[in-house]
Amino acid sequence: MVPLTCKGFTACGMAAGIKKNGNRDLGLLVSDRTARVAAVFTKNLVQAAPVQLDRERIKSGAARAVIVNAGNANCANGRQGRVAARAMSAAVARALSVPEDHVLVASTGVIGAPFPIEKVESAVPDLVEKLDPGGIPDLARAIMTTDTRPKTGARQGAVDGVAYRIVAVAKGAGMIRPDMATMLCFICTDADIPVSDLQTALKRSVDLSFNRITIDGDSSTNDTVITMANGASGAVIEADADKVTFQRLLDDLCMDLARQMVKDGEGVTKVVDLTVRGARSDPDARAIADTIAHSPLVKTAFFGEDANWGRIIAAAGRAGVFLDPERLDLYFDEVLMVKNGTGCGQDAEEKATGVLRKPEFSVVLDLNLGEGTATMLTCDFSLDYVKINADYRS
Amino acid sequence: MVPLTCKGFTACGMAAGIKKNGNRDLGLLVSDRTARVAAVFTKNLVQAAPVQLDRERIKSGAARAVIVNAGNANCANGRQGRVAARAMSAAVARALSVPEDHVLVASTGVIGAPFPIEKVESAVPDLVEKLDPGGIPDLARAIMTTDTRPKTGARQGAVDGVAYRIVAVAKGAGMIRPDMATMLCFICTDADIPVSDLQTALKRSVDLSFNRITIDGDSSTNDTVITMANGASGAVIEADADKVTFQRLLDDLCMDLARQMVKDGEGVTKVVDLTVRGARSDPDARAIADTIAHSPLVKTAFFGEDANWGRIIAAAGRAGVFLDPERLDLYFDEVLMVKNGTGCGQDAEEKATGVLRKPEFSVVLDLNLGEGTATMLTCDFSLDYVKINADYRS
Repeated sequence: MVPLTCKGFTACGMAAGIKKNGNRDLGLLVSDRTARVAAVFTKNLVQAAPVQLDRERIKSGAARAVIVNAGNANCANGRQGRVAARAMSAAVARALSVPEDHVLVASTGVIGAPFPIEKVESAVPDLVEKLDPGGIPDLARAIMTTDTRPKTGARQGAVDGVAYRIVAVAKGAGMIRPDMATMLCFICTDADIPVSDLQTALKRSVDLSFNRITIDGDSSTNDTVITMANGASGAVIEADADKVTFQRLLDDLCMDLARQMVKDGEGVTKVVDLTVRGARSDPDARAIADTIAHSPLVKTAFFGEDANWGRIIAAAGRAGVFLDPERLDLYFDEVLMVKNGTGCGQDAEEKATGVLRKPEFSVVLDLNLGEGTATMLTCDFSLDYVKINADYRS
Repeated sequence: MVPLTCKGFTACGMAAGIKKNGNRDLGLLVSDRTARVAAVFTKNLVQAAPVQLDRERIKSGAARAVIVNAGNANCANGRQGRVAARAMSAAVARALSVPEDHVLVASTGVIGAPFPIEKVESAVPDLVEKLDPGGIPDLARAIMTTDTRPKTGARQGAVDGVAYRIVAVAKGAGMIRPDMATMLCFICTDADIPVSDLQTALKRSVDLSFNRITIDGDSSTNDTVITMANGASGAVIEADADKVTFQRLLDDLCMDLARQMVKDGEGVTKVVDLTVRGARSDPDARAIADTIAHSPLVKTAFFGEDANWGRIIAAAGRAGVFLDPERLDLYFDEVLMVKNGTGCGQDAEEKATGVLRKPEFSVVLDLNLGEGTATMLTCDFSLDYVKINADYRS
């Protein structure tokens, strides 16, 4: 296990009274020197005030800190919300003596509730006091909403014998329709890497990981992934081979966190690796995978441990792209359940039911038309999901 | 109340042993003379065998009977399924002494289970025996799957003092994502109307009613609406004014049945009339209404009687069409909850919570950008929905 520390970075989390239950709700991640910064934000047209602020600030390519709160999304709060987001960053900038526009902001929680900026402002001196090189797990706890477990990960690489780390914290648990639960991820690395390379690498990793669970254009008002690279390790990512390694580590780390999110999804009892292959194109495969992955009938069947493959092919059929129903093959793990569009009988069904009893399994739909492939990570739709989301604000 | 009878039509329903629980599962609707026929089918690429058969037969514009079963969708059964659908119609044709291609077929139930054609064939003589002018309520009961109530309706018009009726039965209860539950509707009228006018009228009524709850291109493998007009009343729909009246009656009848379906949706506790207005175009409004209406987070909030308007505007923001977050107004019934994208405070929230306690209410989102409007009928997403769909096949 790579330790959850990264040279030149400190972090912390504390309770500032934003959450009604008194849990930790305010976190801070700081680089001891100006870091290169890259970010990916939600594509939702309704964007929270912190997202609007960060989008502007990220353009400089430089940052020193990210302050983040849970319990209030600071979204749909109009001018008051924008003022509050700036005030959050100003408080941190004053306490750390850094330029205000080097402080990024993130929020997650209820939309449209007035933002308790006075609580944040009065907590910031304490927050800065708590900063610690070992504080990353505390930061992970401070950003949880309906998450039941903090989500962290770390990877290690080396350039010419000089080691570097990439360390990440994330939150996000509304996995049934992942796009609507805020997903936050903060990644720090002590490698030195140009901003443009960092942005390219982050975009690719996000596409491979969080975008396999959250769909482009289908995101919440607050989704944010921020990466800071401060170069404190002395490892410089320049040569092509080193870029490849960095990318691989970042991909792997992001996929790890994405899987943690699905596993901890609201009410999730099944994690399903879904593959659509043999489509006429990758986008075709993606459209079908997306429709299956979001189908409430498919997801409730997973919850019921019911190998109801008819729902899967019915979802595929309405995805809006071409398929030939009589060429469809469907597997649950290695069990061939459907061949050429018709069921493989009682024996296959019994074996498939065995697969569905497992907490994690794969579903592969082969269209047998071409080379297009898409993979997604999805989950079941349980009674607890409804309970959690019916009661969320009470 | 217009009686559920229609000149020249007989109907019935019985138990043929297709459903495991022994409930009625086989129905028949017959015209005593050749009727003009129009139909609308699912756009799903995976189509049940009866849908494939009817699509061909409907081209003649003439029909005498529809046989329908519940308990097995006869979908994804390959050649065996196609043979079974034909055999169903052949059995009816023999018993009634009518041409086989004047008998239409519909099925609803589990996908991919072998079709018990022998049960249907041996039941058909009994079924024909039971035909009765007052048998339409029995037909409505025979096509139920997870429906808890039969769905019927009737309207009456007149041409030059000659009265005619339009009578309909329908089923469909998987309303949470309506497109994936089979929706069947059979409409008979004793008016005389040309096939092309009947098809045009039916298409328009379906767009106004069932397509407000089931989205084009988003339909199940078996969705079918069939209308037969046998002219037995002597009323001839020819003059423009009579066409208008016929259309109005058909619209009204279909909307009535669509509302019955949503009210009886699986686990539904709330029926919501959703309007999106002030969009730049009707398709824009439709895209936003569709996204809101299908959002599990919005639907679970309705179930929780939680006026969580943030989820509604977040859904609107990811619909893929333009909106200005700071111009959004949102109403629950007459309560203005959001003005210019921000909440109207505690008082409005309390009033809105009162609205959400009602079994039926309206939600209106005004984008304040143009004249585009869309309406949809949606519902909440309850614990019972998950229970019903996790256990469906067991």
